[in-house]
Amino acid sequence: MKIYLAGPDVFLRDAVEIGRRKVDICAAHGLTGLYPLDNIVDLAAPDASRQIFCGNEAMMDQADAIIANLTPFRGAGADPGTVYELGYMAGRRKFCLAYSNDGAVYADRVGRFLTVTSEGGRLVDPHGLTVEDFGHSDNLMMIHALELHGCPLVTPAEMPIDLWHDLAAFEACVRMAAARLIAS
Amino acid sequence: MKIYLAGPDVFLRDAVEIGRRKVDICAAHGLTGLYPLDNIVDLAAPDASRQIFCGNEAMMDQADAIIANLTPFRGAGADPGTVYELGYMAGRRKFCLAYSNDGAVYADRVGRFLTVTSEGGRLVDPHGLTVEDFGHSDNLMMIHALELHGCPLVTPAEMPIDLWHDLAAFEACVRMAAARLIAS
Repeated sequence: MKIYLAGPDVFLRDAVEIGRRKVDICAAHGLTGLYPLDNIVDLAAPDASRQIFCGNEAMMDQADAIIANLTPFRGAGADPGTVYELGYMAGRRKFCLAYSNDGAVYADRVGRFLTVTSEGGRLVDPHGLTVEDFGHSDNLMMIHALELHGCPLVTPAEMPIDLWHDLAAFEACVRMAAARLIAS
Repeated sequence: MKIYLAGPDVFLRDAVEIGRRKVDICAAHGLTGLYPLDNIVDLAAPDASRQIFCGNEAMMDQADAIIANLTPFRGAGADPGTVYELGYMAGRRKFCLAYSNDGAVYADRVGRFLTVTSEGGRLVDPHGLTVEDFGHSDNLMMIHALELHGCPLVTPAEMPIDLWHDLAAFEACVRMAAARLIAS
């Protein structure tokens, strides 16, 4: 059973090494992890970014499931590139799993970056845009997609010291994927 | 032909009014716009956010296409909830269109929020995470999904004064959708 390993992990300094660790954890649970950086891309080519897209899409199409790293990325929410992939896999009717190493409530997290005020019963940011306040840790589309098309978002009880390298929540997803995919 | 109207527009103070304007523009081009706020949801119910998700997913499933508003939202990139929907529609093999009212290059835009430095030939943010630098205005997954599953991202030649209410780029998407969907 093949799992597509989505996340901003590919942007880390040790992106290759973290991918290897994730693939090893999958293997220990009887699963094959597919990591975007394992695609062969000519980064010097003028169409390098399209090659990356096509490689990632082909990997997703051959995978049975996705484990997306939704740890907040450059702001209050998850990495849009990763979220695109989660949506794509939900649309392909694949099994959807994800984790976030920051389990804070979204509205509280927005408050770390922007001044959030209350206006006529709703929370708003400085541009007057409503801050979603359903007690979830990110936008409701991802939260309920996971609940209804796979497994609920996994978050650690306590935020790990190293947000980008702690793989305990990732491994919890792998265990759930193995229980579901190997049984079926 | 039905178009799902995705975007953080639903978070605006005048969310209902902007939806009405978008639906009217669709109608003027012979298309039916489906706007998330037209779903009936009991916001006082304990499962309100799941009702919203299910309503949006049902709307997407009945639509032939999506026009996503990828204007940067609370940071350098697009709204993850909207991006989830774009991915979902690409996965469902629907016709994908999007616009962003800020056509700046992503790497430049990140620089408005964070200090971006050069490190061994790549741009990095203060956490050491690579800043994507292919000259696109957002993550390559969305950019090429649009190019390969619909129409390239529409951006205005000049950033409009009112980023959240200017619908010229939206209307350009509607015209492209009409040309494609009504002809087929």
